[in-house]
Amino acid sequence: MTLPPLDAIPASVAAVTDYEPLARERMSAAAWAYFAGGAGDEWTRRENVAAFDRLPLRPRALRDLSTATTRTRLLGLDLAAPILLAPVAFQRMAHGDGEYATVHAAGALDTVAVVSTQASVDLADLAGLATRPLWFQLYIQPDRAFTAALVRRAEEAGYRALVVTVDAPATGMRWREQRAGFALPAGIEAVNLRGMRGLPPAPRDALLFGTPLAAAAPTWEAIGWLRGLTRLPILLKGIADAGDARRAIDAGADGIIVSNHGGRSLDGAAAAIDLLPPIADTVAGAVPLLMDGGVRRGTDVLRALALGAGAVLVGRPYIFALAAAGAVGVAHVLRLLRAELELAMALTGCPDIAAIDRSILAGRA
Amino acid sequence: MTLPPLDAIPASVAAVTDYEPLARERMSAAAWAYFAGGAGDEWTRRENVAAFDRLPLRPRALRDLSTATTRTRLLGLDLAAPILLAPVAFQRMAHGDGEYATVHAAGALDTVAVVSTQASVDLADLAGLATRPLWFQLYIQPDRAFTAALVRRAEEAGYRALVVTVDAPATGMRWREQRAGFALPAGIEAVNLRGMRGLPPAPRDALLFGTPLAAAAPTWEAIGWLRGLTRLPILLKGIADAGDARRAIDAGADGIIVSNHGGRSLDGAAAAIDLLPPIADTVAGAVPLLMDGGVRRGTDVLRALALGAGAVLVGRPYIFALAAAGAVGVAHVLRLLRAELELAMALTGCPDIAAIDRSILAGRA
Amino acid sequence: MTLPPLDAIPASVAAVTDYEPLARERMSAAAWAYFAGGAGDEWTRRENVAAFDRLPLRPRALRDLSTATTRTRLLGLDLAAPILLAPVAFQRMAHGDGEYATVHAAGALDTVAVVSTQASVDLADLAGLATRPLWFQLYIQPDRAFTAALVRRAEEAGYRALVVTVDAPATGMRWREQRAGFALPAGIEAVNLRGMRGLPPAPRDALLFGTPLAAAAPTWEAIGWLRGLTRLPILLKGIADAGDARRAIDAGADGIIVSNHGGRSLDGAAAAIDLLPPIADTVAGAVPLLMDGGVRRGTDVLRALALGAGAVLVGRPYIFALAAAGAVGVAHVLRLLRAELELAMALTGCPDIAAIDRSILAGRA
Amino acid sequence: MTLPPLDAIPASVAAVTDYEPLARERMSAAAWAYFAGGAGDEWTRRENVAAFDRLPLRPRALRDLSTATTRTRLLGLDLAAPILLAPVAFQRMAHGDGEYATVHAAGALDTVAVVSTQASVDLADLAGLATRPLWFQLYIQPDRAFTAALVRRAEEAGYRALVVTVDAPATGMRWREQRAGFALPAGIEAVNLRGMRGLPPAPRDALLFGTPLAAAAPTWEAIGWLRGLTRLPILLKGIADAGDARRAIDAGADGIIVSNHGGRSLDGAAAAIDLLPPIADTVAGAVPLLMDGGVRRGTDVLRALALGAGAVLVGRPYIFALAAAGAVGVAHVLRLLRAELELAMALTGCPDIAAIDRSILAGRA
Repeated sequence: MTLPPLDAIPASVAAVTDYEPLARERMSAAAWAYFAGGAGDEWTRRENVAAFDRLPLRPRALRDLSTATTRTRLLGLDLAAPILLAPVAFQRMAHGDGEYATVHAAGALDTVAVVSTQASVDLADLAGLATRPLWFQLYIQPDRAFTAALVRRAEEAGYRALVVTVDAPATGMRWREQRAGFALPAGIEAVNLRGMRGLPPAPRDALLFGTPLAAAAPTWEAIGWLRGLTRLPILLKGIADAGDARRAIDAGADGIIVSNHGGRSLDGAAAAIDLLPPIADTVAGAVPLLMDGGVRRGTDVLRALALGAGAVLVGRPYIFALAAAGAVGVAHVLRLLRAELELAMALTGCPDIAAIDRSILAGRA
Repeated sequence: MTLPPLDAIPASVAAVTDYEPLARERMSAAAWAYFAGGAGDEWTRRENVAAFDRLPLRPRALRDLSTATTRTRLLGLDLAAPILLAPVAFQRMAHGDGEYATVHAAGALDTVAVVSTQASVDLADLAGLATRPLWFQLYIQPDRAFTAALVRRAEEAGYRALVVTVDAPATGMRWREQRAGFALPAGIEAVNLRGMRGLPPAPRDALLFGTPLAAAAPTWEAIGWLRGLTRLPILLKGIADAGDARRAIDAGADGIIVSNHGGRSLDGAAAAIDLLPPIADTVAGAVPLLMDGGVRRGTDVLRALALGAGAVLVGRPYIFALAAAGAVGVAHVLRLLRAELELAMALTGCPDIAAIDRSILAGRA
Repeated sequence: MTLPPLDAIPASVAAVTDYEPLARERMSAAAWAYFAGGAGDEWTRRENVAAFDRLPLRPRALRDLSTATTRTRLLGLDLAAPILLAPVAFQRMAHGDGEYATVHAAGALDTVAVVSTQASVDLADLAGLATRPLWFQLYIQPDRAFTAALVRRAEEAGYRALVVTVDAPATGMRWREQRAGFALPAGIEAVNLRGMRGLPPAPRDALLFGTPLAAAAPTWEAIGWLRGLTRLPILLKGIADAGDARRAIDAGADGIIVSNHGGRSLDGAAAAIDLLPPIADTVAGAVPLLMDGGVRRGTDVLRALALGAGAVLVGRPYIFALAAAGAVGVAHVLRLLRAELELAMALTGCPDIAAIDRSILAGRA
Repeated sequence: MTLPPLDAIPASVAAVTDYEPLARERMSAAAWAYFAGGAGDEWTRRENVAAFDRLPLRPRALRDLSTATTRTRLLGLDLAAPILLAPVAFQRMAHGDGEYATVHAAGALDTVAVVSTQASVDLADLAGLATRPLWFQLYIQPDRAFTAALVRRAEEAGYRALVVTVDAPATGMRWREQRAGFALPAGIEAVNLRGMRGLPPAPRDALLFGTPLAAAAPTWEAIGWLRGLTRLPILLKGIADAGDARRAIDAGADGIIVSNHGGRSLDGAAAAIDLLPPIADTVAGAVPLLMDGGVRRGTDVLRALALGAGAVLVGRPYIFALAAAGAVGVAHVLRLLRAELELAMALTGCPDIAAIDRSILAGRA
C-alpha cells in the first residue's frame, strides 16, 4: 500500500474537523453512532472539545524560529511531533483498509499508532507491515491466561509498549448506539480475542453489581500481575485522578494517559483537559504523561502541552479521515495537526516542545 | 396486576428521558401542562436539571467491585438503591392504572413509593395491594380535624412514614397550566380528601395576604401539633434553607427532603442540587437527608449522594414512564437509574453508598 | 372612565409578559420600535431582564402568614405594594386613552403613577382625574424659566414629588428607532412643553460635544437650583454610581432611583439590579431608594427589595398592557405583580416588606 | 475626489455594523472570506467582539459637558478622536477606489490612516493625495535590503510613523479562505512590494519549521536593525504579552499596539481587550499604547480607553463601509464612532479623554 500524495485531498478540507461530515456520508448510521457517539447524554464528549476554548492563548512575538522543531522523545522513541494515534476498535467498520491504513499513515508521518485489543485485523499482520514502532492497547480480560498469551503475542510481534485501559470495567451507557440499533456488521470482529473464554452476554439494562463481570473487573492487583508478566513499558490509559496517578507510578507504570475514554465511558466526567493539571502537578515528570480527549487543532495540542502533557493522542479525528479517504486521510490529519502546532508554537514564541509552559495561557475567557 | 418483562420496552428507550416524548403523545395538552410544567417562567424547573451538568465528575480506576452494592438503609427500611418515587398527585390522569401501577412497580423494584395526599385512588386500597412499605405525603390542611383523621387512616393502612410538604402554603403561579386551560378531568379527584372542610375557591389572580388561606397556612407550630399526633416518622419535604433544616430537627422531624417542589412552587428558587450542600453541612447526619428535583440519570443520583444526600426521589421521570407504559414503565425507570448508578459508582471507584463523597466531584466546569 | 372587572382579561394572559405579543399586534412598527426598543444593540435592555435570573432564591418554610402584608410607606404615602408606574412618554401612541388610563389604573390599585414631562396629555387634566397622589417626572430643560414654570404648574396641580431624570443629557443612540423610521405620529406631542424655547434640532449622526445641547446639559448645579425652587420632594432618577448617590443626598435629594433608563440611554450600562447593591450600601437608608429596569415578575420585585430597594417601578410591562387592554390592562399588571410578590414573600418566609433581606438570595447560579 | 455629504447614507444604516450585510452583497464570496474571515475556527475573531459585552459600564450623571471634547494627541499629532484606521491589505478588492477612499475619509474626519505594506495602490501616490499625516505599516521582509528601501520610500513620501507588525511571522491558518478558494483577483497586487526577492511559495498544508520562512522570521534583532535605520517613530503592532511590551520599550519602540491581528493570526488568542490590562499596567504611560480588535461601537472605544489604551484602531468596520459606500462610508464610520464615543463619555461623566479610567467599569456581568 503506497500513500497517495496529500494533494489528493480536496482543498475544502482545511481542518481536521472537515472530515467529519465526509465520514458521516460514507458510514452506516449504526457505524456513525458507534464512532461518533459517546456515553449517556454525551456531555463529556462535547465538553472534551469545548473545554479547550476556555483556555485562551497569549501570543508572543519576535522569537527566533530558525531552529524551531516539534520533535520529541517518548519512551525511547523519537517522534516527529507529540501527536499519537489513539487505540480505536473495529476500524474496518470505518474503511475497508481498517487498521492497516492507520498504521501505514502513522509510519509515513513518523509517529506511533496504538493498536486496539479489539482491532479488526490480526495484531501480528499489522506489526509485520509497520514501518514505525507500534504500541498495543490492552484490556485485562477476566480470562487471565488468555490475557497473558495476548501480551506474549504482542511482544513477539514487536510492539514496543502496552497501553492498559483502566477506565472501562464495563461498557459505558451508549444511548446513541442503543437507539440506532448498533451491532457489529457481519465479517467484523475482534479477531485478536478469538478463543478467549468470555462471560455470558448481559441482557439490555442489566445490572452490574453482583455479576461475574463486576467480580472480574481489573484492580490494582491486576496491574501488579501484568507488571510481573512483561518487560514492555506499561502505560495506564484512563487515569483521571491525581491519587490514581500516584498509585500508578507506585505500581510500576512507565507512563500515564489522562483520558475519559473520549466521553464513551462515564458521561459527566470532566473534560480531559480539565482533568490534566492536578495530575501533571502530581506526576511532576516522574513518568511520561499523555492525554487524549477533544484534541482537534494544533492549538489544542499546544494547550495540552502547556498544562503538563508530554504528548497527546487523537482518536475520532483520524477515524473520520480514515472513513473519508483511507490512509491518506489519516496521514493528512497528522500533517495538519503538526503544521498547526508549528504555527501555534511560532505565534506563542515557543521554538521547541520544552519551551511550552503555562505562561502562554491567558487565563479563562 | 403482574409486571410484564422489561423486554416489552422498545429498545429506543435507552434513557429515562426517552419516555418524555412518548408521554406527551399519550396525554392531553392540559394534562401535559400539569405534569410537565412548573411555576412561572419555569426557570427553576429547567435549572433543577441543568445544575447537575455543572458538577463534573472525576473518575477513579481499578477499585475492587467484587462486593459492590447500591443497597442502603433508610428509616428502618432496606432499599435496593437510594432512589424513591416522589409523591405526585392525580396519577390516573397520566395512566388508567394510576397510583396502583406506581406502587406495584416500586414493590417489584424493591423501593419506597410516597403516596400523595392528592392521590386519585384510595390510600387504603393502595396499601392493601402494596408488596413493600409505603410512605404517605401529607399537606397539613386548614381543617385540622380532617388532617388528624387522614393521618390516622394512613397509620391504619400501614403507611410507614409521613412526608409533610412544607413549601406550598399556596399553589405556585402555574402559568403554563393557566394558558393551557388546565382543569381536572371528570372522574379524577383527590378521593382521600372527600369530606374535608375546604376554603372557598380563590378567583384567578387572587391575592394571598389577608385571606383565610394565608391565615391557615401551616407554620412550625403545625409541625409540633403533628409530632404530638403520631408516632410515625415525619419527614419535612421542601426544606431549602439550612436554618430551616436545623429547626426541623429541633421540631422532631425524623428526616429532611431538600426540594423546590420540582420547580412547581417558587420559580426562581435555586436548583435543588445547589440548595443541598449547606443543608448537608448543617444536618451532618443527625437525621436522614433526601433530595429531589432534576434527577434524570444515575450520575445525578451519584452527585446528590456526593453532596450529602442519603437518597433521592424522582417524580416526572416515572410519571412519564407511567403514561407511556404503565407499571412496567415505572419499573423500567427504577431499573435504568439503578443500573446507571451502579456503573457510575464503578467508574468513580465507589463500591458502596458510604464510599460516595465530594472527592468524586472535579470542580465546576 | 370606570375600570372594567379583571375578568375581562383573557385567561391566556397568565403573566405580565403575556401582554407583549398582544401589544405588538396593536401597535405600528414604529411605535413598537419606540416603546420596546432600547439604545444601541439593546444589550442593556436585555441584560436588565436577564440579570434577575442570576439571583436564585432560597425558599423558607412554615412562617406565620396570618398578618402578612405588602403595604409600604414611601415619602409620606401609604402604598398597597412597593410597585410604582414609571414615567413613560407619549402614551397616547400606545392607546387612545393614554396617560388617563395609566393614572386611572394606578388609583384603582392604590399606587403612584409618575407622569412624564413628555406626557401626551395635559398634566393638570391628569391630576384632576387622579384618585391617588401623582408624581411628576422632570427633565431640567435648557430653558430654565420654562422649567421653573413647569415645576410651578406641577405643584399647583397637586403633584406630590418631582422625579428628576439625570441619565439623559442627550437622547440615546436609538438604532432600532432609526431603522424603523420612527417619528411622532400626527396629533401626538409633548403638550406640557408647548411654548418652551427649544434648541435647534440636531441632524442625524450629529456630534454632541461643542454644541448648545452639551453646554446646557444639567449638572449638579441644576439640582441645587431646583432644590431652591420647590418644597416638593425631589427624587433623582438614573443614579448608577455610589458616589453620585452620596452627592445626590448632599444636594438635598429626598430619594434616589437606580436606573439605566430601561436600556434606552447608555447601551452597555450594567443591569439595573446589578447597579443596585453598592448604591444601597452607600445610601444605607438615608433616603428612600427605588430602582427600575427589567422588573417583570413578583420575584423580581422581591430580589430588588432583598438587595436594598424600598420599591420598584415598572415601565414597559404596563405600557404593553395599556396598548393591549387600556386601563384594565394596566390594573391587571399591578395586580399580577402584587399577587406574585405576595406568593414570593410567602415562599421565602417574609411576612412583610421589612423582613426582606439578602438572606433569601441563594448565591449566583 | 470630493466627499459626498453624509446624508447620502441611507437612514437604515444606524450603526457601524449595519454596513456588514451591505458589504457582503457587494463583494465576491472569496473577497468576503478574505476580509470577514479569521484564522482557524474564528473563535478569536468572534471573541474580540464578544469580550466587550463582558465589561458593563457604570453611568455617572450631571457632569459639566460645556467644554467636553474627544481631541487627543498622539506621537505629535492632534486627532479629532482617539480612533484610527488600521492597516488592511488589498483594499481595491473591497471597492474600486481602494486605499484612496480610505485616506481621503481619514483626512476629512481628521484622523490617521495606517497604510498597509500590502496596499493595492502606490504608497507615494496615496501620500500625495493625503490631507492629513499618514502612518505606514511594515512587515520586515526576509529581503532586508528591499525592506530598507521600502522604509526609505515611506519616509520620502512623508509618512509620519512606522507600524511594524510582529504577530505574523507566517500567515495564519485561514480555513475560511481555503474553503472559499480565495486567490487575489487579476489586477490586484501588493504594488509596493514589486521587485522584492521573495521566498518560494509554500504548498498547501506546508510545515513551517525548518523552512527558509522560519529562518527569516523577524526577531527582536530585526527591531534593533530597523531602529538604526530610521528616525521615524516605530510602533510595534501585535504585542499581546506584558513581557514583550517591556522588551519593545527597551528596544526603542515609540508606541505599542495590543492586537491579535483581528483574529487572523493565532486562533485561540484571547480577545484583544482582555489582553490589554496587564500590558497597560506594564507600559504605565512610558509610550503611547493603542489597541485594535473587536471595536464596533463608541462604547467599545470608551472601554478600551478605560483599560489603558490611548487610542484604538478599527479595521473591518471601515472596510465594510468602504465596500458598501466608498469614501463616504469610511467617513461615516469615523463619524458614527466619534458621535457614539461622545455620548458614552457624556453618560459616564467623562468630559475629556484623560478623565476616562477603570472607575466607569461596573465589574463583570
